Amino acid sequence: MGLIVQKFGGTSVGTVERIQNTAERIIEEIINENQVVVVVSAMGKTTDQLVSMAKQLSENPSKREMDMLLSTGEQVTISLLSMALAERGYDAVSFTGWQAGILTEEVHSNARIVDIQTEKIKHHLDSNQIVIVAGFQGVTVNGEITTLGRGGSDTTAVALAAALKADKCMIYTDVTGVYTSDPRYIPAARKLESISYDEMLELANLGAGVLHARAVEFAKNFQIPLEVCSSMVREPGTIIEEEVTVENNLIVRGVAFEKEITRITVFELEKGLQNLSGIFTALAEKNINVDIIIHNQAATENAYLSFSIKSEDLKETIEVLEGYQENRVFEHFEYETGLAKVSIIGSGMISNPGVAAQMFEALAAGNIRIKMVSTSEIKVSAVIDENEMVNAANILHKTFELDTVKEEIKN
Amino acid sequence: MGLIVQKFGGTSVGTVERIQNTAERIIEEIINENQVVVVVSAMGKTTDQLVSMAKQLSENPSKREMDMLLSTGEQVTISLLSMALAERGYDAVSFTGWQAGILTEEVHSNARIVDIQTEKIKHHLDSNQIVIVAGFQGVTVNGEITTLGRGGSDTTAVALAAALKADKCMIYTDVTGVYTSDPRYIPAARKLESISYDEMLELANLGAGVLHARAVEFAKNFQIPLEVCSSMVREPGTIIEEEVTVENNLIVRGVAFEKEITRITVFELEKGLQNLSGIFTALAEKNINVDIIIHNQAATENAYLSFSIKSEDLKETIEVLEGYQENRVFEHFEYETGLAKVSIIGSGMISNPGVAAQMFEALAAGNIRIKMVSTSEIKVSAVIDENEMVNAANILHKTFELDTVKEEIKN
Repeated sequence: MGLIVQKFGGTSVGTVERIQNTAERIIEEIINENQVVVVVSAMGKTTDQLVSMAKQLSENPSKREMDMLLSTGEQVTISLLSMALAERGYDAVSFTGWQAGILTEEVHSNARIVDIQTEKIKHHLDSNQIVIVAGFQGVTVNGEITTLGRGGSDTTAVALAAALKADKCMIYTDVTGVYTSDPRYIPAARKLESISYDEMLELANLGAGVLHARAVEFAKNFQIPLEVCSSMVREPGTIIEEEVTVENNLIVRGVAFEKEITRITVFELEKGLQNLSGIFTALAEKNINVDIIIHNQAATENAYLSFSIKSEDLKETIEVLEGYQENRVFEHFEYETGLAKVSIIGSGMISNPGVAAQMFEALAAGNIRIKMVSTSEIKVSAVIDENEMVNAANILHKTFELDTVKEEIKN
Repeated sequence: MGLIVQKFGGTSVGTVERIQNTAERIIEEIINENQVVVVVSAMGKTTDQLVSMAKQLSENPSKREMDMLLSTGEQVTISLLSMALAERGYDAVSFTGWQAGILTEEVHSNARIVDIQTEKIKHHLDSNQIVIVAGFQGVTVNGEITTLGRGGSDTTAVALAAALKADKCMIYTDVTGVYTSDPRYIPAARKLESISYDEMLELANLGAGVLHARAVEFAKNFQIPLEVCSSMVREPGTIIEEEVTVENNLIVRGVAFEKEITRITVFELEKGLQNLSGIFTALAEKNINVDIIIHNQAATENAYLSFSIKSEDLKETIEVLEGYQENRVFEHFEYETGLAKVSIIGSGMISNPGVAAQMFEALAAGNIRIKMVSTSEIKVSAVIDENEMVNAANILHKTFELDTVKEEIKN
């Protein structure tokens, strides 16, 4: 008998029928003699509907009141799911974030969990009840309702698993696991049996939407094994844990890609870096996420700087740069839209220095021009033309032998 | 400068446009230099939609989980209304029942308020904020979410007005006030300028849906003046207060009526009353509301008993009675459906003993046969044929001179 945290996302509880299906998935774990804590999101389209009403009333509604509004979504789901379980003869009890003791910082719309007071949940688990907790939400010490931002229900599930010392945290979603790449574009993509926290973090940051990076970080910090699996299809998902699995020769574990990237290049920078940090501070203040940065600090008098952003942030980025241009920090700037980023991810790269070169060669052989590059210990990203993206991803998927299933060997 | 509690029902906040209109009504009181606490219900059809989802999942959902589910309705409204006020430049803050300190008994679906901890609300009023509170809901000392049952938002508003020692509690609804009778059936019905708590209580109990009896009781106990008025039409409503207004010669203040009444008559009762109370206890356990009871306890060996119920409860009532019949408590029973109840209400009746006789004469003159009668100090009810109901109500409305506007004299 173990303690399992199960998390079901908006699609898995999107209709009354889906809620009934979700109840069945919970009962399976009870029949296997596990204690179960369930974390749920708002029903499918609920959040969008609530946001739409708010936007009709206010262009820029207060974050406090948005948290008040949106937190109702999960509260609806927990009560309905509890009823579905009761109807099947299983004793369940639902709790909102504040009732479950999920304490957060005093920040609205994107709060971090600071503590979970688990006494109440433990008491109800000990009374043989299924405990259902509203994801995405918490409460401050002053009794203010907060939400955890994007991927918040994943974070709630992992944080509860950590606080309760659960044996496993299962993330049910609309895909059957973590794939080597996006199967909608890469026909040969296949489900991974397991992946490390660090690899998953890179995948999450590179736009593989299956799990939010903050939840993976949390799981890594507390060493909570995660399993991503489907709420509809009964088959093993992908285990995310510390590196305990070695795949034969498989240095690269996944290929991620993202379109609508823009490259900005700033020419004839003033000498010195003091104003450079000013630009990035100003962009950060506007919530503009700068990704790859290339800075050519040569011996000549002036330098140039390139960085990539999401194309949706271009308008605001231009405004920030034009503000700096007036101060003669640089001579002029240019931008190139219609770009994409293709990345390879794998823990094995650390000990295989030739991986980046192999990637560049493969892309060159496919006549794909690389415009920017960025590397970390376990990933290499290249910015290319957007219309080459899917082709590049397929080339890389094949180059690094992700197309063929390999036997995985557990340590 | 005063403190006003404003309560807006489901119709007044049923759409985004209505919420904007409601915001304007609140701002009017702020411009009049009042402090304002607002209590709101769930948006129009929200509760029905939530109940429908619950019923799809469970025939008989737990009351605890129904409270969890339904309490989200008002939480949506408070946040949207707060946003609408902020958009107009007015500082508002919303609170759920538990945040507002509304403590109830540990009973689900029909809890009574036991205490209101007003510190938080007072603090925000003192900071010149409009305080918006979710009606209909509270919390137990153990942190369980409860709801207050039918008319719960009215009760929240009156209880808050009492706890905060407000100067007035305004109940905004879809009618412009309390009428001498239902204008849909009685063309001559007119709005009352004022009415006493006791008269309003009788009206509420007799099916005049504008205010819930529990809220009126609360207002009477704490002597909170209520005003019932329209959220759409700007005109004075009806003041409900202790008897401070005397209308010239107006003994009867209102005519109420209700159809779908059934009369049950039980024949040849066993001697003694012990089993009689048993019948009514059994009916109460089934939540069957028995209204008028006529018991003929004559000197003869056996007695008979008549009582009236709502026709919708007939099936269950027959089941209860058939259970008793097996115990030979009585010989047999009969029932007559298709009846209605017509009532006259007025505090002035206490000192005018001829009012009931005048009512019976007027009905007799209209060839309307009375089947049952019940009286209190301030009302007389008669059960008649359903197809005579509207005719009878119009006759009584005219007989007691409610058709013509009379000058009201304030003491």
